[in-house]
Amino acid sequence: MPPATRKGTREPARRNGGRAPRKRDAEVLEAAARVFHERGYANASVQDVADAVGILKGSLYHYINTKEDLLYRLLEEVHEEVEQVLESVAAEPDLGPLERLHLYVDRQIAYNARNLVRISVYYHDVERLSPERRDAIHALRRKHEDFVTALIRQAQDDGVVTCDASPRVLANYIFGSIIWVYRWYRPRGRIRPDELARIGADFAIDGLRGGGAPAVA
Amino acid sequence: MPPATRKGTREPARRNGGRAPRKRDAEVLEAAARVFHERGYANASVQDVADAVGILKGSLYHYINTKEDLLYRLLEEVHEEVEQVLESVAAEPDLGPLERLHLYVDRQIAYNARNLVRISVYYHDVERLSPERRDAIHALRRKHEDFVTALIRQAQDDGVVTCDASPRVLANYIFGSIIWVYRWYRPRGRIRPDELARIGADFAIDGLRGGGAPAVA
Repeated sequence: MPPATRKGTREPARRNGGRAPRKRDAEVLEAAARVFHERGYANASVQDVADAVGILKGSLYHYINTKEDLLYRLLEEVHEEVEQVLESVAAEPDLGPLERLHLYVDRQIAYNARNLVRISVYYHDVERLSPERRDAIHALRRKHEDFVTALIRQAQDDGVVTCDASPRVLANYIFGSIIWVYRWYRPRGRIRPDELARIGADFAIDGLRGGGAPAVA
Repeated sequence: MPPATRKGTREPARRNGGRAPRKRDAEVLEAAARVFHERGYANASVQDVADAVGILKGSLYHYINTKEDLLYRLLEEVHEEVEQVLESVAAEPDLGPLERLHLYVDRQIAYNARNLVRISVYYHDVERLSPERRDAIHALRRKHEDFVTALIRQAQDDGVVTCDASPRVLANYIFGSIIWVYRWYRPRGRIRPDELARIGADFAIDGLRGGGAPAVA
């Protein structure tokens, strides 16, 4: 595990003298995600998570102090991963704003489709965090909103998006399409994450660009 | 209040000999929505709802037997209202499939934007219902999914939508845009529900129709 860079949840692990292997840490978070998803965060206990990992509750307290620590670390982990998605899209050379946005939507949908349990817990329970931690997660999320909003504004300025609606409102509609996947996508169904992502990215970018005849005269 | 047509939650009210005024019933459901929204359904109690209405807990048991009854009645009430939206759109004469879909998305977004608290409880807590009641709510929701899916299929058959992706997947992306409003829209902000709804409907219908140059060559 990389050294702690954000406040709060990494410290308790240090009580373990740094001996906690990364693998066990990932196991704990995966088990927490499953337990919170199945029972609901409010109804789940640290004991439930320990049982799911197959360790004693006391051992779990080498990693965390409270149930909320588990939730917070889980959401931090999701953000570390989606931040990598954002960075990889931002680093792609020679893309216009809509091409870059298409790539972003495509990769975020594919990520959500492959991480349904953790994304479900994220959106279902983020508001259960303490105010300070909720603000920290909201700040991480804001980076994505700003990224998408700036690309839409640039596309409007370049004239490739002729609709002059608020870029932030349009960004939120796009996030609705990206995020809601966790509520309806069935991974055992006919449609693979890659195809799902392409359909969603085409839908979102066409929705921005418009250009057809008005649906309602 | 109209006579009970669906199983389950209306019966307890009859213990009151039909004397329960409609106004009080609406007050109870509104208070339940507020309490569930603020405390979370899992953490809220029937006592909390009674306190919010300003009646004794015993009086509340004239309307319901359990906390879950309150949740179920709340979700039924939402469905009665969105079903009216669907029926009004379906009854509109002389509309092509995309014009009808535009009207549906527009009215559903406006409804959600004006009922944020109840819609939040709906999507946050519907899975907390008992399996039988959850299935009943899912069946009501399925009617909307089928309506939108059929309109998209018709638009594809008519050639006004050239994208041949699964109509049900496209419908789900549209529902993501419609529903997610409850998580980001701020009613005290600059954008009124009507404008919000128009932007969302344009986005969704343009997203279906496509027709611009591909964003990614």
